[in-house]
Amino acid sequence: MIYGAPKAYITKDAIPATTTDGPIAYAPNIPPIIDNDSVAIRVDIQHKKITVANGVCFWAWTFGDSIPGPVLRVRVGQTIKFSMVNRSNLTAEVSPPMPHSIDFHAAMVDPHDKYRSINPGETLHFQWTANYAGVFMYHCGTPVILQHMISGMTGMIIVEPEAGFPGKVDKEFAIVQNEYYLKPKGDSLYETDVTSARNRQPMFVTFNGKSKQYVQQPLEVKAGDRVRLYVLNTGPNLTSSFHVVGTIFDKVWIDGNPKNEFRGMQTVLLGSSNGAIVEFIVPEKGTYVFVDHSFASVEQGAVGLIEAK
Amino acid sequence: MIYGAPKAYITKDAIPATTTDGPIAYAPNIPPIIDNDSVAIRVDIQHKKITVANGVCFWAWTFGDSIPGPVLRVRVGQTIKFSMVNRSNLTAEVSPPMPHSIDFHAAMVDPHDKYRSINPGETLHFQWTANYAGVFMYHCGTPVILQHMISGMTGMIIVEPEAGFPGKVDKEFAIVQNEYYLKPKGDSLYETDVTSARNRQPMFVTFNGKSKQYVQQPLEVKAGDRVRLYVLNTGPNLTSSFHVVGTIFDKVWIDGNPKNEFRGMQTVLLGSSNGAIVEFIVPEKGTYVFVDHSFASVEQGAVGLIEAK
Amino acid sequence: MIYGAPKAYITKDAIPATTTDGPIAYAPNIPPIIDNDSVAIRVDIQHKKITVANGVCFWAWTFGDSIPGPVLRVRVGQTIKFSMVNRSNLTAEVSPPMPHSIDFHAAMVDPHDKYRSINPGETLHFQWTANYAGVFMYHCGTPVILQHMISGMTGMIIVEPEAGFPGKVDKEFAIVQNEYYLKPKGDSLYETDVTSARNRQPMFVTFNGKSKQYVQQPLEVKAGDRVRLYVLNTGPNLTSSFHVVGTIFDKVWIDGNPKNEFRGMQTVLLGSSNGAIVEFIVPEKGTYVFVDHSFASVEQGAVGLIEAK
Repeated sequence: MIYGAPKAYITKDAIPATTTDGPIAYAPNIPPIIDNDSVAIRVDIQHKKITVANGVCFWAWTFGDSIPGPVLRVRVGQTIKFSMVNRSNLTAEVSPPMPHSIDFHAAMVDPHDKYRSINPGETLHFQWTANYAGVFMYHCGTPVILQHMISGMTGMIIVEPEAGFPGKVDKEFAIVQNEYYLKPKGDSLYETDVTSARNRQPMFVTFNGKSKQYVQQPLEVKAGDRVRLYVLNTGPNLTSSFHVVGTIFDKVWIDGNPKNEFRGMQTVLLGSSNGAIVEFIVPEKGTYVFVDHSFASVEQGAVGLIEAK
Repeated sequence: MIYGAPKAYITKDAIPATTTDGPIAYAPNIPPIIDNDSVAIRVDIQHKKITVANGVCFWAWTFGDSIPGPVLRVRVGQTIKFSMVNRSNLTAEVSPPMPHSIDFHAAMVDPHDKYRSINPGETLHFQWTANYAGVFMYHCGTPVILQHMISGMTGMIIVEPEAGFPGKVDKEFAIVQNEYYLKPKGDSLYETDVTSARNRQPMFVTFNGKSKQYVQQPLEVKAGDRVRLYVLNTGPNLTSSFHVVGTIFDKVWIDGNPKNEFRGMQTVLLGSSNGAIVEFIVPEKGTYVFVDHSFASVEQGAVGLIEAK
Repeated sequence: MIYGAPKAYITKDAIPATTTDGPIAYAPNIPPIIDNDSVAIRVDIQHKKITVANGVCFWAWTFGDSIPGPVLRVRVGQTIKFSMVNRSNLTAEVSPPMPHSIDFHAAMVDPHDKYRSINPGETLHFQWTANYAGVFMYHCGTPVILQHMISGMTGMIIVEPEAGFPGKVDKEFAIVQNEYYLKPKGDSLYETDVTSARNRQPMFVTFNGKSKQYVQQPLEVKAGDRVRLYVLNTGPNLTSSFHVVGTIFDKVWIDGNPKNEFRGMQTVLLGSSNGAIVEFIVPEKGTYVFVDHSFASVEQGAVGLIEAK
């Protein structure tokens, strides 16, 4: 295990052409792993208009280009050389620029140092080494943190065991659950609402950031496939009772660590910032439904389809 | 493991005299298991006036004759030949007939096929084979599912391991927790309220469907008994912090699978649609209290007594 | 295992000079264990004005001198000879005296007998023997229990395995999470509010009873320390997603029992009246933050600092 890391530092560089770099994909996709002792990852922050549901958009604060932020994938023992540009100055005319930061639940470092806030236009640099396998959350840690989280600043990082996760699977997807707390601002434009967030009364609960998106565009698998889902509940408030209709989780690894194994589970209960890896067999051709089985969440958007051909 | 099953089909038959058939009992009772490779189970759906608490009743939609629906009990490896009559046409004058369906969390089959909605007067037939031991939920899966669930359409199915659950116990009970979301309609008559269900603000939280029923009529055991409870939180929204005052759970099997064992637990946290088997010794003569230790739920009805002679 | 105990009894004695006696400390401190087959513990009940946050106080009902009540520490196999004086008659001019009781989640005894309510001025005596290791809750069990719990009558008892908890650690702290449901009464004085408690909408969520106290006065550790936290979520309603920013839980023992071990956890989800022992390495000098990662709770006070020199 490697505990701690050299001091973080801040530079002012030219803004890169792209918002991300490294072993990065957007959920439900999972990036390939990079097979080095160290891996460079850049995830910039921007302010961007995001569509949450038909007729509902808002000026979000995002890691990379989406809510949730990109899925990152590293391996136990790898040193992550991380950098992040605060690009919020680029959209000053529509969304006030402001300080932001990043907190990796997969890292063991001084938050006061590495998770510091940087100003618009600045680039933060720090490194850390992955000690534990799992499905971890990252998020902005700049106060008011609740405000930054409901504005979209959350994402998943997968840390593989040194020899990879045990067992073979046919398909893998990343599923990040989050809650939106919004109030109308005019037409289809909304804004974040800290009051309803404090009251734990979301307007939407979504998988990978958009209400019911996988009802329109199902995930595709084959009958007989062993499917592995990397699931993360980013909250910021509620638990998730994650469930797939029509199958049973053969294995569940709580927080994504194979040492925390459950078998034969109908539903996995995840706290706010708990991850899990779940594996199941697709029993036959058909249409399977994944939900937060806290069913108010389904009404609020936490439902998707898996189509088995 | 048997994955999938032949296509479901629908018939129009004469309505049977009884609403259920097979290895069925009403909670807190548990039915005997039927010792065959396959077992026929019928659970019909009806619309029925149900009393939730003193002075509070509503026109519910039920599996069989009660909320929760009957406890079913099968064994790993058994094929369940299931049928279900939608009898909602029989009470058309007091409650609008409508399509209904059933979703077994214990089954591995295509939901689009087997969990299809059937019209009033129709009979649905399908089969499935039990692959995993546990305490599973079943419920109606017809949209708006939240509405069907808060109308009473939830229940428990116990799947025993092939050799039965390990260990001997002296007493067994089934405890199904659910939330009611109701609003007044006149006199003691209420109706379901999807708004409070979406807001996760229940009017009642009950064990086996009726507020505080086991305060009036305690479950009976003997001092020194090893008691096994089959517990299921059907939600539809809240977690349950299931606890028995005056004892400690010697064993807890999450989702009812002996592979998911915890020891010496004061409380087991169950998500919406999580089951558990809990075992404890009754230490001496007296009166023990079982609760959802999320204590607002106790005020809303989730409290019962176990009397030890 | 010792099941049950002799009957409880009540005396009327002179009120002792102090409110507690035995292996007792106030969180975050943990008392030393007393190395005998039996151990006498006294925890009296009083009505006392408690400050919850700057400018917010109320007339609480407490075990001992604080909210939460004192941390108790015993060992598996020990017989606890417990007594408790209801001192609520001593403050009759400012807070109505009333019956109170105590319910130990660590005990296996008839609640109807041992957890009986006693009147102001009375002393309750009973004994029990610790059968299971863990981090357990105690609380007042006098109806309306929800009212007694939100008035402050909750605390932690640690039961060590006979040979002590496995492994060596450098620092230990006790962290009890609770929710406050209050409404203004005048100036900085508040009173408990059962309505918001029933609606599960707290005003404060705190660690060891006072909003953000460890932001002002951080817990102190050293870089490289292995730290063990005894964590208890007393609710009375919400789950806790307990998390420490900047590190990962090397071990988590659910309900404090080493048999219920998880590894490499970012967050541990605790139901109302679930405990846990969590251990982690402090990776480097710095400032670590512990939170309920259900982030509305952070806004409501559930945040503290760990300073690593």
